Amino acid sequence: MKVLMLVENDFEDLELFYPFYRLKEEGWEVKVASSSTETKSGKRGYTMTPDMTYEDVRVEDFSALVIPGGKSPERVRINSKAVEVVRGFIKAEKPIAAICHGPQLLISAGAVKGRKMSSWIGIRDDLIAAGAEYVDAEVVVDGNFITSRMPDDLPAFCRELIKMLKRY
Amino acid sequence: MKVLMLVENDFEDLELFYPFYRLKEEGWEVKVASSSTETKSGKRGYTMTPDMTYEDVRVEDFSALVIPGGKSPERVRINSKAVEVVRGFIKAEKPIAAICHGPQLLISAGAVKGRKMSSWIGIRDDLIAAGAEYVDAEVVVDGNFITSRMPDDLPAFCRELIKMLKRY
Repeated sequence: MKVLMLVENDFEDLELFYPFYRLKEEGWEVKVASSSTETKSGKRGYTMTPDMTYEDVRVEDFSALVIPGGKSPERVRINSKAVEVVRGFIKAEKPIAAICHGPQLLISAGAVKGRKMSSWIGIRDDLIAAGAEYVDAEVVVDGNFITSRMPDDLPAFCRELIKMLKRY
Repeated sequence: MKVLMLVENDFEDLELFYPFYRLKEEGWEVKVASSSTETKSGKRGYTMTPDMTYEDVRVEDFSALVIPGGKSPERVRINSKAVEVVRGFIKAEKPIAAICHGPQLLISAGAVKGRKMSSWIGIRDDLIAAGAEYVDAEVVVDGNFITSRMPDDLPAFCRELIKMLKRY
């Protein structure tokens, strides 16, 4: 099992590292893609060196996509190559787990209309405006989408992600 | 299942939050004890409000003890009530998982002699001086002790902790 994460500077540190370590705990491989392979920093100062750029991602190599929050997703979504990667996972109907501001990528990919989703409350209105059915819950699973609100939701977020990946 | 963590200021944020969320993901209860119930801060600025003081801990209420690292363990060990709590877990032979500087508490409790253990390399010589057999590995399990070196060891650390707790 191989999982991809999309990360830029000012990521929410726990939302990157909890799923990153958690999937490794399961014995799975986790790769990080970014706009460059230069080391990126979280809001709290933890660092992560990406394995590859968005251009080098081959969606067929991965079983799932995880998008941590913080200010990172706003930086990821302005890169059209990154949005193409997200569209690849959507088209292939592979599991996509997005937490906090992570669902911003799903708006950019034009994929939220009619989907039940959660997110950080600050972008709730963007999800609603884009046609999603917003749910204020620690985790919302709708088809291949898993979404959560914030770091304290990480236990529920990863429980559902791992459950989905074990079925996959 | 109910697990206790011992925490003071300047804890290593990931070493507190990864096990904290991970045990909750498993559906278990996690309680945090400290010198006071005032909110404590990690080295990176994440915060945790303790549930109880060391005085209020009843070892018989818990199945295991987890000691995260950072500068927290040095602050925990100077409190004799905290060391008494650790001795209670040792006497009851309950699982004790300590990462990074966490094993400093096991030195203070006089419990490392002849035990195979790991830790952050900076306190390796203290463990050896106190009679432990130091092992440079992502996780070392010796009887009821689980020890690791640093945040990147968290997947292995929690994998062994959860395996031990499921047997317990």
